[in-house]
Parts: sequence; C-alpha cells; structure tokens
Amino acid sequence: MSQSIAAHPDRLLPADPGTRSIARSLLARVQDLPIISPHGHVDAAVIEQDTPFPDPAALLVSPDHYVTRLIHASGVPLDRLRPPVDPSATAPESRTVWRALCEAWPLFEGTASGYWLRDQFRRVFGLDQEISGATADASFDAISARLQEADFRPRRLFKDFNIEVLATTDDPLDDLAAHRALAADATFHGRVLPTFRPDAYLNPAAPAWAGNVERLIAMAGDGGSGFAGYLTALQNRRRYFIEHGAVSADHGVRTPRTLKLDAADAERLFERSRSGRATGAERDDFEAHMMYQMARMSVEDGLVMTIHPGSFRNHHTDTFTKYGADTGHDIPFAVNYTEAIRPVLQDFGTNKDFHLVLFTLDETVFSRELAPLAGFYPSVYLGAPWWFLDAPDAMLRFRSAVTETAGFSRSSGFIDDTRAFCSIPARHDASRRIEAAFLARLVAEHRVSEDRAHDIIVDLVDASPRRVFKL
Amino acid sequence: MSQSIAAHPDRLLPADPGTRSIARSLLARVQDLPIISPHGHVDAAVIEQDTPFPDPAALLVSPDHYVTRLIHASGVPLDRLRPPVDPSATAPESRTVWRALCEAWPLFEGTASGYWLRDQFRRVFGLDQEISGATADASFDAISARLQEADFRPRRLFKDFNIEVLATTDDPLDDLAAHRALAADATFHGRVLPTFRPDAYLNPAAPAWAGNVERLIAMAGDGGSGFAGYLTALQNRRRYFIEHGAVSADHGVRTPRTLKLDAADAERLFERSRSGRATGAERDDFEAHMMYQMARMSVEDGLVMTIHPGSFRNHHTDTFTKYGADTGHDIPFAVNYTEAIRPVLQDFGTNKDFHLVLFTLDETVFSRELAPLAGFYPSVYLGAPWWFLDAPDAMLRFRSAVTETAGFSRSSGFIDDTRAFCSIPARHDASRRIEAAFLARLVAEHRVSEDRAHDIIVDLVDASPRRVFKL
Amino acid sequence: MSQSIAAHPDRLLPADPGTRSIARSLLARVQDLPIISPHGHVDAAVIEQDTPFPDPAALLVSPDHYVTRLIHASGVPLDRLRPPVDPSATAPESRTVWRALCEAWPLFEGTASGYWLRDQFRRVFGLDQEISGATADASFDAISARLQEADFRPRRLFKDFNIEVLATTDDPLDDLAAHRALAADATFHGRVLPTFRPDAYLNPAAPAWAGNVERLIAMAGDGGSGFAGYLTALQNRRRYFIEHGAVSADHGVRTPRTLKLDAADAERLFERSRSGRATGAERDDFEAHMMYQMARMSVEDGLVMTIHPGSFRNHHTDTFTKYGADTGHDIPFAVNYTEAIRPVLQDFGTNKDFHLVLFTLDETVFSRELAPLAGFYPSVYLGAPWWFLDAPDAMLRFRSAVTETAGFSRSSGFIDDTRAFCSIPARHDASRRIEAAFLARLVAEHRVSEDRAHDIIVDLVDASPRRVFKL
Repeated sequence: MSQSIAAHPDRLLPADPGTRSIARSLLARVQDLPIISPHGHVDAAVIEQDTPFPDPAALLVSPDHYVTRLIHASGVPLDRLRPPVDPSATAPESRTVWRALCEAWPLFEGTASGYWLRDQFRRVFGLDQEISGATADASFDAISARLQEADFRPRRLFKDFNIEVLATTDDPLDDLAAHRALAADATFHGRVLPTFRPDAYLNPAAPAWAGNVERLIAMAGDGGSGFAGYLTALQNRRRYFIEHGAVSADHGVRTPRTLKLDAADAERLFERSRSGRATGAERDDFEAHMMYQMARMSVEDGLVMTIHPGSFRNHHTDTFTKYGADTGHDIPFAVNYTEAIRPVLQDFGTNKDFHLVLFTLDETVFSRELAPLAGFYPSVYLGAPWWFLDAPDAMLRFRSAVTETAGFSRSSGFIDDTRAFCSIPARHDASRRIEAAFLARLVAEHRVSEDRAHDIIVDLVDASPRRVFKL
Repeated sequence: MSQSIAAHPDRLLPADPGTRSIARSLLARVQDLPIISPHGHVDAAVIEQDTPFPDPAALLVSPDHYVTRLIHASGVPLDRLRPPVDPSATAPESRTVWRALCEAWPLFEGTASGYWLRDQFRRVFGLDQEISGATADASFDAISARLQEADFRPRRLFKDFNIEVLATTDDPLDDLAAHRALAADATFHGRVLPTFRPDAYLNPAAPAWAGNVERLIAMAGDGGSGFAGYLTALQNRRRYFIEHGAVSADHGVRTPRTLKLDAADAERLFERSRSGRATGAERDDFEAHMMYQMARMSVEDGLVMTIHPGSFRNHHTDTFTKYGADTGHDIPFAVNYTEAIRPVLQDFGTNKDFHLVLFTLDETVFSRELAPLAGFYPSVYLGAPWWFLDAPDAMLRFRSAVTETAGFSRSSGFIDDTRAFCSIPARHDASRRIEAAFLARLVAEHRVSEDRAHDIIVDLVDASPRRVFKL
Repeated sequence: MSQSIAAHPDRLLPADPGTRSIARSLLARVQDLPIISPHGHVDAAVIEQDTPFPDPAALLVSPDHYVTRLIHASGVPLDRLRPPVDPSATAPESRTVWRALCEAWPLFEGTASGYWLRDQFRRVFGLDQEISGATADASFDAISARLQEADFRPRRLFKDFNIEVLATTDDPLDDLAAHRALAADATFHGRVLPTFRPDAYLNPAAPAWAGNVERLIAMAGDGGSGFAGYLTALQNRRRYFIEHGAVSADHGVRTPRTLKLDAADAERLFERSRSGRATGAERDDFEAHMMYQMARMSVEDGLVMTIHPGSFRNHHTDTFTKYGADTGHDIPFAVNYTEAIRPVLQDFGTNKDFHLVLFTLDETVFSRELAPLAGFYPSVYLGAPWWFLDAPDAMLRFRSAVTETAGFSRSSGFIDDTRAFCSIPARHDASRRIEAAFLARLVAEHRVSEDRAHDIIVDLVDASPRRVFKL
C-alpha cells in the first residue's frame, strides 16, 4: 500500500491545487530529458565490463553509507550490515543484511534515502509491495531474480535510465583504461568521463601522502623531484585526464581555505612535509596553497574546479578502523567561504573561462556567502545541495536561499554524487520535481511568468550542467 | 473576539484545505494521549503538598521570564513585574503586575508565549474574552476566583491535564523528600520523577562551586576528599536519584565541549580549581572533562544524559544583581557540536544503552550536525526545539531540517521545559498540532503514506519519549 | 507578456486561495499609506535642485551595484557597464550599457533586483512590454523620453511616490546645505533628513582616517587636539546634524564588536593610531571603543544608533582599484552579536530612550541572537532584512525567525537603503505585500485574529518606523 506513493504522479509537488497544476506542467517539460551527471562515484569498469550486479544486499545496502548509517543508529551493529576491512573476518550473509534493511524500513520514512530506495524498488525492480520484515525473503528473492535477468546489466540500464553523461571520480594515477575502452567502443553511446581527484596527493595530513607524492613524481614527472617537479607531474596527469575526457577536478577538503605562497615558501613547506617535519599549521598552509595551485592549473588547462569542504571525516575512530572510510560517520561542521576562497578569487575570480563550483554542507553559507559570490564573480557557480542536503525540503531551502540574490543562472545543475548506480534516476527525478515545485510557487505568486518558468526549468535541468561543466 | 481563536479546532494546522484535512485526522490520533514530560522545572513539593496556586500575577506573570521579558522590552521596568532579590525591597502589588500584562497584551501577538497564555486563559481559566488593559481588573478577579476553587489544585489539575509522567529538575544534594512522598502515596497516580542537575558542582566558574564540592564530598563521599572522592560522591548521588525514580541527568553548559583527561591531569585541575589558582582555560578544561565523566557514569548507571548548551546566561549584569537569574536576558550564541562532543562519542557513542539527548538554541546545527550525528550514533538523540525554538514555526523548521537525514525515530519527543505548570497542556497540544501539520504536508506531497503517518505521529508523541527517556 | 506580472494585483501574495484573500484585505489597509524611509542613500542635492534624471543607463544601471553585479557574473566586464575611477579612461556609452542590461534581463528572473526593475519599468516608466535584447533601443528611447518630461523630476516624483520622510546618509563634515534649503523651502512638503555616518572618522584602518580626524578636530573641535577634543568635535557635529533634522547615526562596521576602555587607554590607542604605530588589534580595539562612545553619545543626544556589520567590503581588489567601492563585490560573512554588543548593552541597554537598531546579513542571528536581544532590552530593535536579504522569501524567513520570540513590536519597519530613487515605491510595495502575506498565514492558521492583523500591519508599515526612528 505505502509503496503506491512511489507511483503517484504528483509526488513531491506542492499541495496547493493551483500551484500543483503549474508544477505538473513544468515537470512535463523536463521529465524525459536525458540525465547529465557531472559528478559521482560509479565505477567505470563496471560499465565497461558490463558486470552483472551482485545480490540485493551488496547492491543496495552494504556499500551505501546513507543506508547503513540509519540502521546502525537504531542499534544494529555494522558487522551485520557490511563486511569489515579485515579480509579474514566474516562478512555478514546477504540475506541477513537484506532482512536488517527490511526490518529497519520504517526508520527511513521521510528521509531522502527512503525516497530513493522506494522509487528504485518500484521503478527499477518492479516491486509493488512495500518492503517489510515479514516479506524480507520474498523481496530478496524478487530482486535477486531481477538482477539475474539478461537485460539487467549496467550498459542496458545506462540506456534505459536515459543517461547521456556520467562522470566518475578517479585517482590521479589511474590509467583510465575503462574510460578509454568505453570511448573507443562503438556499441556504447553514452559518455563516461573521468574526474581528477587529487586529495591524497595534495594534503600532507593524508596518511599516504608522502608515498603518493613519490609515486606521482616517479610516474608523471619530468625528472625533477622537488616542488617544481611535483607541480609538473600534477599538470601532466591533469592533461592525461583531459585527453581521456575529463572535464573537472574535484577537491574534498576539510575547509575551503586557499593560500597564495611565493615559490620559496611553497618549496620549503613541501620539503618539510615530505620529511615529516612540518607542523600541523604548515601542513594546512601547504594544502591551502595547493588549492591555489589547482585553481591556477584550472585556469590554464580548463578543467572545472569543484570544492567539497566541511565534513569531519571518520568521526568515530573505532568504526573507521574496523570498517574503513565512507561508513556513515562523516559529520559536517560550520564553514566560511568569504575569506577562505579570496586568494583564489583575487587572482582568478574574474577569469570567465575559469569555472569554480562551490559546495557546502553548511546551509548557512548559501544566502550569506555563496549567492553573493556567484552573483559577482563570473567564475563562481553554486554547487547543488549535496549529501545530507540532497533532499526535497533541503533543495527547496537552497533555491529559496540563493535565487533572490543570484537568480537561476549561477547554479551547477543537479549533482547526484552517488555510488549507487540504480538510484541515479530516482535522484534526478526528485531534483526535477523540486525545481518544478519551487518555480511553480514563484509563478503562483506572480514573481515569474509561466512562459519564463518553462525556459528556466529546461535551463536548470539541461543547459546549466552542460554550460557549467563545459560538456 | 480574538480569544475565539484559542478555541478554533484547526489552530496551527496548515491553511491548504486538503492538507488541513489530513492534519485533522492525524491530530485526532494523538489529541487525547497522556502527557509525558521528561524534562521541566515544576516544583515537586507543590504537587506533593497540593499547594493552592497564588494570585494570577504570581502564577502567570512574575516568575515567567518568557512573559516579563517582552513587557520589559516595551519599557516597563522589572520592578513593576517581579520582586527583586533583596527581600527588604518592595515587591510590586499583584493587581498592578497583572495590569501590566493586560496592557502589554498586544505585544504577545504572534509569539509562543502569547499562544500558550491565550490557550490557558480559555481552556484552564475559562475566560471567553481576550484580556486587555480595559478589562484588567475583571480578568484578575475572574482568575483569582478560579484559583480559589476547590478543584483548582495541583493534584487535580495533574489528573485533568492527563499528565502521566512529569520530571522535575533538582540539585544533586536535594533529599527528594517530595518525590519519595508522592511515590509512596497510593492516592496519587502520576509519576513525578527527579532529574539530576549537577552544573553547580561541575563547573569551577560557578560562584559557589568550591563550597558545593565540599558539601558534596562531605554528604555523599566515601571519606576521600580528592578527585576520586568527588567522583564517588557524584556517583552516589546519581544512585540516590535513580533510587528515587530519576531517569536522566541534565547539563546546562555554556558550550557542548567535552574532554578526556588522564587521572593525573584531572586531579591536578580539580585541586587547582578548588584552591582558586586555576586559569579560565583550566576551569573550562575541567568542566569539559566532567562532561566526559558524566557520560561515563551514564553508561554505567543508565541515566539518560541531556545537554543544553549555547545560552549566555545573565547577559545584563545590573538586572542579574537586582533580580537574579532566569529573568529574561539569557541570550543564545553559535555552537558547534561536531568536534566538541567527539571525545564522548569516541568512547561511548556506539553503546546503545547510552542515551545522549543533544539540545540547541542555534538552529543551524540541526541539519548540519545534530541530524547527521543522530543518524549514525545509536546513543545520540535529537533534543526537541527548546526555549526560544519551542514555537510553531520553529518546530516546523526543526522537522524540516532533521527529518530528511535522521527520519522520525531519532528525536526525543516533545520537551516542555517549563516552570509554568498551567501551561503544560497548551505546550503539548501545540507540539502535537505541529507534528500533525508537518506530517500532513508530507502526506499531501506523497512522501509518506497516510497509514504510516498515523503510526509515526503516535510514535512521536507517545513512544519516542518513553523509549528515549527509558520510561 | 512577462511584464504583465508586474501589474498583477496579487503579486507576492500566497498561492492558497483562502490565505490570499486574507492577504488582499490586509494589503488594502496599507497600500496607500505614505512612504517613510528612515535609512537610504539618495543625494539630498538632487531633490533640492530638482535635478533632471540622466539617461536610462546612468539612472538605472551603472550606479546600481545590485544590477551590474549579476550582469558582470555572466561574463560582461564592468568597463561595459559603468565608468572607471580614472577620469581619463573612456566611460561606456549609455545606449551600450542599456543594451547590456536588456540582453542580460533573463538573469534577473527570481531576483529582488529583477522584481524592483520590472515594477519600475511598468509603474514609473509605463513600459508595457518586457525588456529584451531585441527591443533594447526602443526601451532606451521610451525611458529617455519619459526622463525628459517636465513632470519627471525628483520633487514631483517625491510627491507622486507619496514619500513623507526620506533620510539620506552623510559625511560628518557635510554642511547639509541641501537639507537646510529643503527645510526652508515652503514649496516642498516632504521631510529630507540627514544621517550622521562617521565610519571614516572612527575606524583607524580606513585609509583617510588620520586626515579625516585632523579635519574634524580643526573644523568642529574646541581647540584641544587630543582624544577629548576629538570626542568633542564628534559631539559637535552630531549636534549640527540634529539641528538639521537628523534622527539617526549609522555605522557600517566590519563586525559588531564594542569595547569599553578607560580614558587613558582610549587616549593611548588614539595617539598610536594617529601616528601610524598602532597594531591591527589596537586599531580594532579603538574602533570597537568608538562604537561604545557613539552609543554613549546617542544616549545623551538622542540620535538613534543603527549598526550595519558583516560585509567584507571590496572583496576583489582589482575591481576596487579600477571601479572603486560599491561595485558589487561586498560579500557577507558570519557575525555574532551576543558577546560583541554586550559592553554597550551592559551600560545603556535598559535606557529606553536609547534606540539601537541592529542589522545583519547573516540570517542565522535573527532567531538565535537578535530576537532574544530585542525581546529583553528596551533599547534594541530588529533591523529589517537588509541588502541581499531585502527580498520576498528572505523577508518571510525573517518574520518567521523573529516573531515567535519578539513579536511584531520590536522591528524597525522597512528600510529601503537604496540609492536608486525610482525604486523606492517598488521596494516599499514589496515589503507591504510580504507583511500581508506573513500575517495572512498566521490568520489562516488561527494564530492571530484578522482584526488584530489589521492593526499589526498598520503598525508595522507606519507606526513602527515613526516610533523606532523618533519621527
């Protein structure tokens, strides 16, 4: 019964009948447009090799920290939900994991994850009953059967989902073989683009940084081993990514701080960091300077620069030790962009070929800092609401917070940021519904004409991501 | 005339007719459920001794800083509204105080206090006319007459209000005689539970701290006078509270900072604080460490730990000197939980028998920090919107901010936090209406099915506080 | 076609039909009330001399950083939109500037600036077609023709716009000749009041501070050249402003920090700042102390004190160098009032003749700090949403954030803060519509009676600014 809400044509649209009617007509304009996903975490090799999906738990539960998080909060230990890091330890049985989700299902009411899962259950897996503890085996079997169908493969779904562009997130030293193979494959019609993600090569506080830097210089440098050689190696890998279709470089940083240093100071911090003698403040300065360098390189090579700050990663150390990163305990904190991003904007902010997309998990910066920045600097774009904020009410708050200052032209377009391939249509559909809902209110309040709203929603869904990500 | 809005069955429900109709049906499910009040400031002795209520001003105006605050802001000095600290000074006459409220009544339009007062005037005191300066004497007399009726006594109202559980807030050295007497009284059917509130024994910056510590160790210790004896005395008093029905320990702290120290450092800070030699930073460290210790004890003895940070107490010194604490000038400021609470969560966060309820007066942490924390740690619960945020729009903002990340299962249930006994039904009624309003919107937007919404509202109003506060 | 939305009688009113009907009736009560504008940036001389308005671009585009900002963000360099600082450089041709606006017009959909411009186009300039790149010449010519009409002069518009009071913002050493002439002119019936704006004389970090101080002491002092003479000179100029009709002193500060110093420390910082030896921290302390002194003088001379903090001025240095201040790159940041404003409130906060109006660009302080402060201190008033927040949704968020704590009596009334004379009616009209929209929701939810809402909206629009600004 509850499952029927996933099928309701008016889901997420405003309740007021007049406004809903406007929203329906706006939604109709964009509902069938192709999906453009310029930032996410799907594995290109899975698409290239057309790897069949594993069982329901390994596909939909264990790797999705959005999902295991809330079940864990209800008191189910993670060892019943996902495999531990230690390969010699026992991983939970799939059917047991699935049952844990089914029993915990009521916890997801009202959540973004619950909305996406319910949408997938109905539209991707064809379940017409709500999942529940009582029917856990039946739903496990039904989804398992679907996963084994010949047409339920990544490439077929890529087409069925109407995905036009899908960007992955990749290590700078990745050979991008899967991307190359897909690009060369005449039977595959989508675009799967790599994204340059150099965090572990830029931040000396990252555990493997020194080793990463050695490998980077060895594999991609010009023979020099100092700071100049390091910069050259980074430039070379960026070029390699661009040659393989990359349009952006993504930066997951603790804070949005940037810092311009002269060459001697940068060199000195680099060497102190490599030798392990740098203080915490020096490591922070070096990372902030590397953000400046990345901006400089983006100006030169054209890669769109995206910044994702403000998450305290791996908040619970024991969980990190046993289960690794991305296991549900990355917790946001307050950020400030206005001063932090200024060194980059001073030098590159009015370069209109430079595209800098700023994300936040701290909603307060939307109206206070990001909309004013994006409303002046041609380089700055508002990153779509991300992670915890990628949800219906939060997306409405975002539009309300930024539009009156920055209009509709300065935002990135929707970013699904997901590693859950089958959730991509649900996420983009939800975003389109919320854009329709927001615009419908403005039309109903005579703030935007209905004609213009039709143009705007097409621009938001389709033209914005192409423009911002240079697609 | 205006008073009639207090009687409207649809008050606080959404205006859209379709959504309102859903909200009505949700409200009907919970409107008659008993009141569970796990945190507040009513005096247990008043209930135990069934003390008649004083006059209208002393009951409804003078002690309620929510009310005197706004009259004071309009230019009425506090000496016309409440007695000063100095017992030799003249206290204002009750009828005069009441007249000040009546004349100031228009100031309360749109406020939470105004809503609760209007509800009480109609439903508890039976006034059918709006109060006003012109009718001040008449309303004073009418309420005075009601206060003298035989059935207008605390115990009878406790029953009429349908209160099942009422927690008080108590000094650690309180003998809890009133609680004990009530528990032993076969003619009284409610539960009145003490709450352990040790702030003045934990924070060396509190003026009486050193003396409190001496008394604590003398009255409840094991003979040792050092840090270990102090901890033992605290443990003993917690046990005493538990034996008298306490389910929680409450902490009103300036910031949510917690700190783990080794025994030697803790001992050293304790002794430096006792001898008055501690710096401000050392006193802060000691208090932060005592929050860690309180968490450890909660893990051991099972008391729910509640934290209320972020209020700058007694902002105006002259007012504090003349009228004491809780006189309307406690002003919130920005807080950050993510790093501050981490030491406690590192060690105890995944202990699911540990219940930690986090409150905030800074709304920005709801979506940014508290929902993500409560959405991972089994120990963490979202404290209901509190104090200035305990109001219709603020409660809706809270639900919107947290639900998409943490769902409905991770919140504490409504907390009235009041010393105004007669306002308890109004506050709980308002909360239930807002829960119905929020859920009705989700139903109208096809995000939650109506069936599930009925389950959820019962859970929010009734099961959540029982579960979170171990009732 | 789109232009027709500017004519819709229900623009900005809520979509729900029942609520809209209430809002219409509330709006009707205030739609024809005179405009009271107690803070803005119009030039008094323009009114006094009844200077004809220049061409469309110089009137509506080039000087308005709200407008050039967003066109600049789309990639149009500022040299095509406004004249540079260097008088020998070429200024862009007016028709070209106008065309840039017309071509960029879709960027303004959903923004506050777009709303005001569209309203002006229709109601002030009588355009009945939406502007667009294709019709740029036609709209330029139409507006140009209107500007040359004999009745399109500042004094006539002042009357047509139904402006009763208009405050300007003036340098402390301004002779206020235009204000004096207007006051003496029996043919002019409005009030044009100066506002004392001493930032450049108080903040030692301002480039011209030392020179300003010399001029101030020379022109307005009592012969003494030290700190006491400086204070006396400031007092004298405040008196001069009061004699010319000023009701307020306005302070554009980086942060809201205030600081009480004893005379010797103040004198010392003053001399160190004058001699250029002060550290950054000392200059900050001096400015914070001067805010304390300004409060003290306001208590003595009765000028309302208004504080506008939290903007990082001239964020992009190159733009500042070429185009000067107020060119669209002032970017807000987080502020905290609770501790910062305390020194002033400790000493003057309960003086009810002291009026202190606190503004913010950081919305988070509305519910957290400003409403609690204004809900206790008789001196504190909530500044209306300002600058980026002076927009329909932001104004609704403001009312929702503050009303439940502070009611409707503690806010300043609408502040247009504009240098765009022709936009004044549009801005006040939008504000009145939003007040009606907010109150209508409270009526529809049975939180305020319709009768009282009618009183409240008149108070908000008319009585509040008169009361708060002592008009």
